[in-house]
Amino acid sequence: NKLWGGRFEKSVTDCVEKFSESVSFDKVLYKQDIIGSRAHATMLAHQGLMSESDRDAILRGLDEIQTQIEDDRFVWRTDREDVHMNIEAALTDLIGEPAKKLHTARSRNDQVVTDLRLWCRDAIHQMNACIKKLQVALVKLAMQNEGLIVPGYTHLQRAQPVLLQHLLLAYVEQLERDSGRLIDCSVRLNFCPLGACALAGTGLPIDRFMTAEALGFTSPMANSIDAVSDRDFVLELLSVNSIIAMHLSRIGEEWVLWASEEFGFLIPSDAVSTGSSIMPQKKNPDPMELVRGKSARVVGDLMTLLVLCKGLPQAYNRDLQEDKEPLFDSVNTVIGMLDVTAEFAENITFNKERILQALPAGHLDATTLADYLVKKDIPFRTAHDIVGKSVALCLSKNCQLLDLTLTELRDLNPVFGEDVYEFLGVEKCVNKFSSYGSTGSDCVAKQLFQWTSKLDIESNNKN
Amino acid sequence: NKLWGGRFEKSVTDCVEKFSESVSFDKVLYKQDIIGSRAHATMLAHQGLMSESDRDAILRGLDEIQTQIEDDRFVWRTDREDVHMNIEAALTDLIGEPAKKLHTARSRNDQVVTDLRLWCRDAIHQMNACIKKLQVALVKLAMQNEGLIVPGYTHLQRAQPVLLQHLLLAYVEQLERDSGRLIDCSVRLNFCPLGACALAGTGLPIDRFMTAEALGFTSPMANSIDAVSDRDFVLELLSVNSIIAMHLSRIGEEWVLWASEEFGFLIPSDAVSTGSSIMPQKKNPDPMELVRGKSARVVGDLMTLLVLCKGLPQAYNRDLQEDKEPLFDSVNTVIGMLDVTAEFAENITFNKERILQALPAGHLDATTLADYLVKKDIPFRTAHDIVGKSVALCLSKNCQLLDLTLTELRDLNPVFGEDVYEFLGVEKCVNKFSSYGSTGSDCVAKQLFQWTSKLDIESNNKN
Amino acid sequence: NKLWGGRFEKSVTDCVEKFSESVSFDKVLYKQDIIGSRAHATMLAHQGLMSESDRDAILRGLDEIQTQIEDDRFVWRTDREDVHMNIEAALTDLIGEPAKKLHTARSRNDQVVTDLRLWCRDAIHQMNACIKKLQVALVKLAMQNEGLIVPGYTHLQRAQPVLLQHLLLAYVEQLERDSGRLIDCSVRLNFCPLGACALAGTGLPIDRFMTAEALGFTSPMANSIDAVSDRDFVLELLSVNSIIAMHLSRIGEEWVLWASEEFGFLIPSDAVSTGSSIMPQKKNPDPMELVRGKSARVVGDLMTLLVLCKGLPQAYNRDLQEDKEPLFDSVNTVIGMLDVTAEFAENITFNKERILQALPAGHLDATTLADYLVKKDIPFRTAHDIVGKSVALCLSKNCQLLDLTLTELRDLNPVFGEDVYEFLGVEKCVNKFSSYGSTGSDCVAKQLFQWTSKLDIESNNKN
Amino acid sequence: NKLWGGRFEKSVTDCVEKFSESVSFDKVLYKQDIIGSRAHATMLAHQGLMSESDRDAILRGLDEIQTQIEDDRFVWRTDREDVHMNIEAALTDLIGEPAKKLHTARSRNDQVVTDLRLWCRDAIHQMNACIKKLQVALVKLAMQNEGLIVPGYTHLQRAQPVLLQHLLLAYVEQLERDSGRLIDCSVRLNFCPLGACALAGTGLPIDRFMTAEALGFTSPMANSIDAVSDRDFVLELLSVNSIIAMHLSRIGEEWVLWASEEFGFLIPSDAVSTGSSIMPQKKNPDPMELVRGKSARVVGDLMTLLVLCKGLPQAYNRDLQEDKEPLFDSVNTVIGMLDVTAEFAENITFNKERILQALPAGHLDATTLADYLVKKDIPFRTAHDIVGKSVALCLSKNCQLLDLTLTELRDLNPVFGEDVYEFLGVEKCVNKFSSYGSTGSDCVAKQLFQWTSKLDIESNNKN
Repeated sequence: NKLWGGRFEKSVTDCVEKFSESVSFDKVLYKQDIIGSRAHATMLAHQGLMSESDRDAILRGLDEIQTQIEDDRFVWRTDREDVHMNIEAALTDLIGEPAKKLHTARSRNDQVVTDLRLWCRDAIHQMNACIKKLQVALVKLAMQNEGLIVPGYTHLQRAQPVLLQHLLLAYVEQLERDSGRLIDCSVRLNFCPLGACALAGTGLPIDRFMTAEALGFTSPMANSIDAVSDRDFVLELLSVNSIIAMHLSRIGEEWVLWASEEFGFLIPSDAVSTGSSIMPQKKNPDPMELVRGKSARVVGDLMTLLVLCKGLPQAYNRDLQEDKEPLFDSVNTVIGMLDVTAEFAENITFNKERILQALPAGHLDATTLADYLVKKDIPFRTAHDIVGKSVALCLSKNCQLLDLTLTELRDLNPVFGEDVYEFLGVEKCVNKFSSYGSTGSDCVAKQLFQWTSKLDIESNNKN
Repeated sequence: NKLWGGRFEKSVTDCVEKFSESVSFDKVLYKQDIIGSRAHATMLAHQGLMSESDRDAILRGLDEIQTQIEDDRFVWRTDREDVHMNIEAALTDLIGEPAKKLHTARSRNDQVVTDLRLWCRDAIHQMNACIKKLQVALVKLAMQNEGLIVPGYTHLQRAQPVLLQHLLLAYVEQLERDSGRLIDCSVRLNFCPLGACALAGTGLPIDRFMTAEALGFTSPMANSIDAVSDRDFVLELLSVNSIIAMHLSRIGEEWVLWASEEFGFLIPSDAVSTGSSIMPQKKNPDPMELVRGKSARVVGDLMTLLVLCKGLPQAYNRDLQEDKEPLFDSVNTVIGMLDVTAEFAENITFNKERILQALPAGHLDATTLADYLVKKDIPFRTAHDIVGKSVALCLSKNCQLLDLTLTELRDLNPVFGEDVYEFLGVEKCVNKFSSYGSTGSDCVAKQLFQWTSKLDIESNNKN
Repeated sequence: NKLWGGRFEKSVTDCVEKFSESVSFDKVLYKQDIIGSRAHATMLAHQGLMSESDRDAILRGLDEIQTQIEDDRFVWRTDREDVHMNIEAALTDLIGEPAKKLHTARSRNDQVVTDLRLWCRDAIHQMNACIKKLQVALVKLAMQNEGLIVPGYTHLQRAQPVLLQHLLLAYVEQLERDSGRLIDCSVRLNFCPLGACALAGTGLPIDRFMTAEALGFTSPMANSIDAVSDRDFVLELLSVNSIIAMHLSRIGEEWVLWASEEFGFLIPSDAVSTGSSIMPQKKNPDPMELVRGKSARVVGDLMTLLVLCKGLPQAYNRDLQEDKEPLFDSVNTVIGMLDVTAEFAENITFNKERILQALPAGHLDATTLADYLVKKDIPFRTAHDIVGKSVALCLSKNCQLLDLTLTELRDLNPVFGEDVYEFLGVEKCVNKFSSYGSTGSDCVAKQLFQWTSKLDIESNNKN
Repeated sequence: NKLWGGRFEKSVTDCVEKFSESVSFDKVLYKQDIIGSRAHATMLAHQGLMSESDRDAILRGLDEIQTQIEDDRFVWRTDREDVHMNIEAALTDLIGEPAKKLHTARSRNDQVVTDLRLWCRDAIHQMNACIKKLQVALVKLAMQNEGLIVPGYTHLQRAQPVLLQHLLLAYVEQLERDSGRLIDCSVRLNFCPLGACALAGTGLPIDRFMTAEALGFTSPMANSIDAVSDRDFVLELLSVNSIIAMHLSRIGEEWVLWASEEFGFLIPSDAVSTGSSIMPQKKNPDPMELVRGKSARVVGDLMTLLVLCKGLPQAYNRDLQEDKEPLFDSVNTVIGMLDVTAEFAENITFNKERILQALPAGHLDATTLADYLVKKDIPFRTAHDIVGKSVALCLSKNCQLLDLTLTELRDLNPVFGEDVYEFLGVEKCVNKFSSYGSTGSDCVAKQLFQWTSKLDIESNNKN
């Protein structure tokens, strides 16, 4: 019989039971639920709301149930609705009367949100480890490719030459901010709702500071209605995840492009590629396509939670049961995306020959040439125009800027001197960059050094 | 070994295999996959691309596999990636060489999208049945509550009196349009991609019209690249589902409101209510809260698919593997929502006493009073103003419009006559409505008659 | 003073007035609002609810107001809230008393949704014209590039050779389904809410069939509560737009890729390219990047409307005022995207030389080679494996399949004969395709013929 | 002529110009753009890249332009594309040659994202002030309603009695976390991209630390590619806004409910209500409906940006131009929502009489009764069952718990004593609450005190 059945004469229909059960997915909270119950029982006993022997029976019973669950011997029952009722009812089956005291000064409303905050805290911890792992993989990839110049793109059109290291460290920077967002979220969510009960608190002499401390929370939440009403911590986490997923989708897009025949810059190993059921020659970079694709569900999960919470009155509404699946899916998906991106990074090589051969195209040195003119006191806007015309000349001659003769250049503007050739060609061009954060070799070396330190990577370890 | 392994030297890593497998969720397509393979093999044999004995072996093998799956004896293998490879490889294990001919002139690209279209067609059929079931439940509920007047609301403020039947039929109208959208979608998606192969078609002498017909499609799709590239039929279905879910969320909101102590208009039976783990007196209309809440995931699923498809180049990209879970989730959720709403409708009673007692509040007859003045040749805008002042008078006296004396009314405007009282009070007011589609008793009776005919409900059957 | 002010003693605050006004954006409905009022006044007079002279005064006044608006002489007033009140109050200023009769048997609730349906019907008409224009541009582009073979991609990896025409017609197919969705939507929305009044209809003797017919609607809506409550027609239109936008985002992605230095297949003219403020050599395919980017807001608009409608009780709630801006933005954005894509299509050339030079890479003929083996009675799965090994051999020798000697091939399988070379190389390969809807020249020519007929393009007109 | 026109022979078409211009909306960045240019020019002069007289001409010119803009005398030109080009070109028109030096070592790529970060920083500052204003309004409302008990709800069913103050402070808590999220966002975004130029930095001797400091940034961003590529700060802000909007939508829902005839707890003044064009008696709480509704567009804006950024390669893509309108709309909408909610809070009264009259219904004291039994050593689960049966008895007798006689209670369980009546009835019940954060009077008074201190509200000032 339902644990809340006192005033009811009839059970819910099968259709309703099936539609409204949550144990099929919220059972993953079992560990947090048991930890929470342990802290709660301990506090109840300390406050005289339960005898020590009842407490001990409960603690032993919870241990036994946890073991059963982890040994896959526990029978989850849909008619017991959710993880909380399943564990409490099983505890009653196991130890009898004392179990009936466990729900003193507690409601599922505060219980579930305590479980959920604990789960999110753990999830954030795990995600941050995955982010660090991916950062390490990217930094190591950078270390393995010292000096490799690649085209930098804007609008997917060739723009300026950059060090591959510089590009890889851009990803690392973005992931670092993602990590910061996760940490902010974990700090903000680390307040304890337990003891808010249904929504109003209780008149029983509980000690919320004791349970909060036992569960590692900063302190109890200050308003019991707020405690059971709000899911902003889930929304914040799903928002942060959406940004991470967006970042990874961009790496996915870039690496899929680079692995194409047309770019040909990146070669994934067989270990991270798949083939075609019909086309025998195919070798596809599927993991990064899936990383790009799976960003969609992370965004969808966020959308779900925003729609869910919109316009709900305060305190618990059953709609909120729907907060869990998107949360679990989002976290699990992002962890998978981070892991597989790291694995991919560890299994690719850059095709240096192909890259080198590709570099002359696209007039990557045009902006450096304009800077040359600026150094000769030509206003930048005028310099831009002169170089624009130089490029037009190259296009008509089908040549590179460094192929233009000094005479040709001087026809465009007399300020050009022999020294102009020091600014042309991709390697010379990269060497010119010197501003803080730029792609100049020294600048990038400094950034790389900071990341190897921060991430604890030994600098002679390039693998 | 992977079926596409010819050119590969190394298997994918465990991490990649786990991340990229789809069999854990696409196995629900097994029936469509087998039907598709049967049609394909039959056509291949007819076209001389396979012997009749090979075809027969394949058909028998597929039968055996289907039985195994439905008896839960089939071993789904993650290393075989997806439902297609699992079935083909199992077929090879079972019947040997002939199985190797099944994938002739076929790719997983056209195969999966054929399966998916078949699945959607079935899903739409099922959803339409659920819609009809809910419409029947609503119409029967209307039949059981003939003559019951309830307040009609705008801005959640009392507006005008309406027949409860009229409100219930508004839901029925909305569901009917939902059904129309589903049908349009099923007509548009019913074209066969099979034979588009990887993306370009084939040079083998297949007959796409034969397979299309065997599978109940209108005809083959006309462009092989389009056939394997597009998922607009999934997007259309998820859009239609989002609109259905939105409609149901509104019924959910309304019934949750009406079941509150404050409204008190609707009493759900114990069979569709649940209690509280802490508050012994609670009886909550959880199913309709969940209906409202679950609309969120249906919207989230649509969002997922829109983000997924955005910016993908033509033809198959692995991202598209992610189209299935949102599709399955959306359809299953909407079916559950429709079913439980019907069940709820069958398990509620309207509290006539409470409704009757509530009707006088809110000056529901004010607009009818203005119409009275219009009939006396007062321009509507002036009539509106006069009645506004009458209401202000009622507020100051804390009375209803029909409590005002003729003298009081004539002080506001001399046109008022004794006949004004024929227009005041909720019942008289409802009786006045006469325009097509209005809440007047005759109008509603006509609408109800049309729905009982259309839905095949016997008119003397009110239960 | 507010037209609804009778019972109010105080005006709303400036902050509230500014927050809640809608005239700044709903004034674009002026034409529909005036058409609707004309039909309504005509009906009122016909039904004896207004004199003919009042009707004539109203019709003349509305003409004058329309002229003022179109000459930009009309003063829109925020304190008059919305387009409806602005026009009605201006009419009263203009013609006095008769104007006060216009709102007889009408509410802003049915008025706004009538305007909106009329606006959507017009918008769909316009969008369908834009779709056709784009289809024509794509078909003409196809006509100009007869016989041009390009690599077909899956996973952005080279897959099989396809005719460029075939790819362009894939876009045309997708747009055709988009057009079908728009038409379905316009048919479903074409029912008239006018006369539903606030939510309950009216007791005044109006003729809803007369106004419905005058406004070109199929018939009046059958349920007055439904008429003012639902915005599913807006949601349906925004869903259809999201699918169109998704399709265009994919063309955008593909053309941006093709315009890159690395692909180099597509050259946009200066007329549809932009430059860089700093990099003088840049020429960017901005319009197609923006097309890709603007798909985002179309999706965002749909999400806005879904969130908006979720969980609203029946009949008008003020939330619904927020339906307009996303609708207008979505329609205007999609029209802009369609137009600019057509303009882009008219301003690009394909770089045949570059494409031809690129074709040998990627073993595009591998699948055709497998089909060759199938014709020699090798089971496809075995054929796939043999060709996979052939490709591996090519990779090790850094050559193409057609460079393998017959001896080398026979070492892999003795079934290879001299005739194998008829199946190798991109041109021969394309010629082999023969299945319905495939990229074979004849198949594509047939498709192209059908489109030129359907779209009324003269076949000798390739420009 | 376009400032980037050097290599171009032809202008863009009108259609493309209109489609791709951004000045119509990005002109709101003028102030940030000018501040940025001032800092940049000053730095260039300091570094010797520009003469002091050129710098002074530029600074004076920018002053003049700012004045023109603010006096509405500036002519914004669509053919000059965006706010940056408009200002730079106008500066050239105004001061000639020196203006051509301003774009030295700068690209629109770093310029726009610098402007945008400055704009977001200002916006966050302003939003935080609005949040505080709303918190103050809510706390004052609480101060004005000391001791007022209202029903607390879960599932919109009456649950337990709570102090209205407690409910209002729940909103204040939620807003406080919103404010914390805004602050975290502003700290994280406060790094300067200026000097990243197109994507690679520059070889000219600029000082990025100088400009960063001048503009109030913490420091320059460390990676130039990251600096121009990422919009995560916009996404974070839009996510935070979505959570704020969600919170406000819930207040909106609750206050709309409470203003209904059925609840009748809350009376908005005329100053924040609107009427109906047809129903003379209506007084609608429109501002809070619109607050609820406008949450939708804030969510839509976030979705737009997530879709926009998904799958973009690194560095600037023109898609990113679409980041601005959703950002501006989201911020402006949230500010409007916060302001109008504060205004509404200042213009409502709670209907104490009606509330008092409503309190007995719903057995709000049932849980307190269960706690009574717990204090008598009945296990909670048993106590829950006993009270459930007591409520069933009340339902059958149509009475309240405190109407049950001691005999009746003892029939259910002999442990009931005379002291039970100390726990029944709403007032006694509220007095019993004592746990931290509960709705007990002392607990709430402490919370209220903390908020008045934190928000600097004088405690004797209740208005």
